Amino acid sequence: MTDPRAQGDVRIVSVRGATAQRRTDLLAGEEPMAIRAAGPGQEPLDIAVTMRTPGNDEDLAAGFLITEGLVSPGAIAGFTLGDPSSVSHPDNTITVRLTEPLDPSRVAGRNFVATASCGLCGKASIDDVERRVPPVAAGPTVSREVLVALPDRLRAVQTIFSRTGGLHACAAFDADGTLGPTAEDVGRHNALDKLVGIAAQRGMLPLAGRGVLVSGRVSFEIVQKTAMAGAGLLAAVSAPTDLAVRVADRLGLTLVGFLRDDSFNVYAHPERIADL
Amino acid sequence: MTDPRAQGDVRIVSVRGATAQRRTDLLAGEEPMAIRAAGPGQEPLDIAVTMRTPGNDEDLAAGFLITEGLVSPGAIAGFTLGDPSSVSHPDNTITVRLTEPLDPSRVAGRNFVATASCGLCGKASIDDVERRVPPVAAGPTVSREVLVALPDRLRAVQTIFSRTGGLHACAAFDADGTLGPTAEDVGRHNALDKLVGIAAQRGMLPLAGRGVLVSGRVSFEIVQKTAMAGAGLLAAVSAPTDLAVRVADRLGLTLVGFLRDDSFNVYAHPERIADL
Repeated sequence: MTDPRAQGDVRIVSVRGATAQRRTDLLAGEEPMAIRAAGPGQEPLDIAVTMRTPGNDEDLAAGFLITEGLVSPGAIAGFTLGDPSSVSHPDNTITVRLTEPLDPSRVAGRNFVATASCGLCGKASIDDVERRVPPVAAGPTVSREVLVALPDRLRAVQTIFSRTGGLHACAAFDADGTLGPTAEDVGRHNALDKLVGIAAQRGMLPLAGRGVLVSGRVSFEIVQKTAMAGAGLLAAVSAPTDLAVRVADRLGLTLVGFLRDDSFNVYAHPERIADL
Repeated sequence: MTDPRAQGDVRIVSVRGATAQRRTDLLAGEEPMAIRAAGPGQEPLDIAVTMRTPGNDEDLAAGFLITEGLVSPGAIAGFTLGDPSSVSHPDNTITVRLTEPLDPSRVAGRNFVATASCGLCGKASIDDVERRVPPVAAGPTVSREVLVALPDRLRAVQTIFSRTGGLHACAAFDADGTLGPTAEDVGRHNALDKLVGIAAQRGMLPLAGRGVLVSGRVSFEIVQKTAMAGAGLLAAVSAPTDLAVRVADRLGLTLVGFLRDDSFNVYAHPERIADL
């Protein structure tokens, strides 16, 4: 964890019961990294883009190629960090140099599971998201009491099964804390996509004047999807990443994390929380 | 959650302190789903493959297209479930029918973040993984005492920062519980890939005779990556999916979940745990 981008400082409003305090908080770093690979004399092949915490980038690239069965451990000759030809994101590309040629058909023939992203670098991503995301509406304005009651409400509507810990849950909620729709999945992104899909079928999009509650952590992609659905507030039981906070700030989305018991942190746009 | 595949029964060994009991456990279902989309008279375009909990599949497909900015909510005309032309996986494909043409360049121009998978259907995936994964070695044999001490050891080597909840951690360990290497990341897959990459740089692959401990949950892909690294035992602080258990069973990997305090569940191949 020597990479300075492995963590990031943000200014937050920390609410503990009736008290609210402005302070600095430390968050996990999140940035995209493009993984490429090239045998001797071979043009680099694009393998994957992953949202990762900066640090151990060579290990991540090597491990990805090995655990995906694309190369053997002995075939890794070295690494080229960055892409000097890129003006916008020279630091977030890594090329793995191999001792043997990589057959392009081995890469193309694989079905990689896709989750969403929108670019190779944080700056370009945020710019791109800003272009695609509709303006976030002003509401809702939510009281502290409504916010802190949300996690219990979500647990109450989850199935007994999902309470065993195997599933992520999420829900839309309105300014008085009424939940709906709700969705569950093993994947955080999937749960949110299901929620948005249900809302679409019910003619509820955009979710203007509503918030979204998620059971887990908040990555860049969760912020992006929430903003695309038009919700004004995203609340999570656990931590956001630094990129999630930067994107929420840029997009005008209120971001609440560590929503537990009578406490929570506000990472972006506290104006949608009453009496703060 | 009306889809019967949303959850799966497995036979486990439940260890609570000195007692060990065989019983049935309920796990979250996990299966791949291919999302396609087609405008009027258009051939379906492959958009993404995601590992999801079956159920609300139409909502997931619609929500994915909307939150990725590929279609507007009003453009969704309906859904075609399954692919009758597929013999091996007719149930795990969904095609979203659109009221307007989908520009292929909008799909091709997006950079989807790739995590690993290896096929469109559970059965084909397992077969494919079996072909690519080297045989899992017999060891290690680990005592209950060593197992239950692992989570505290992992927390002790994590940075204070990562203990705040923002990062996933994982570690290799040997039969006497000595940890190393360890790795952290916002993404579960990335943390494991970093671990395997570090092991590769140190000449420790395959991880035969070692286990892998992960701080989160166990999906199919975590099992796949652990087996590709050659470890014999995968232990997790939280729950596995049903597909993770089926794959571990087929590959010969010992799978331990809910490793907390003096308790854990064994989901596959208990023979690597002493005195069970």
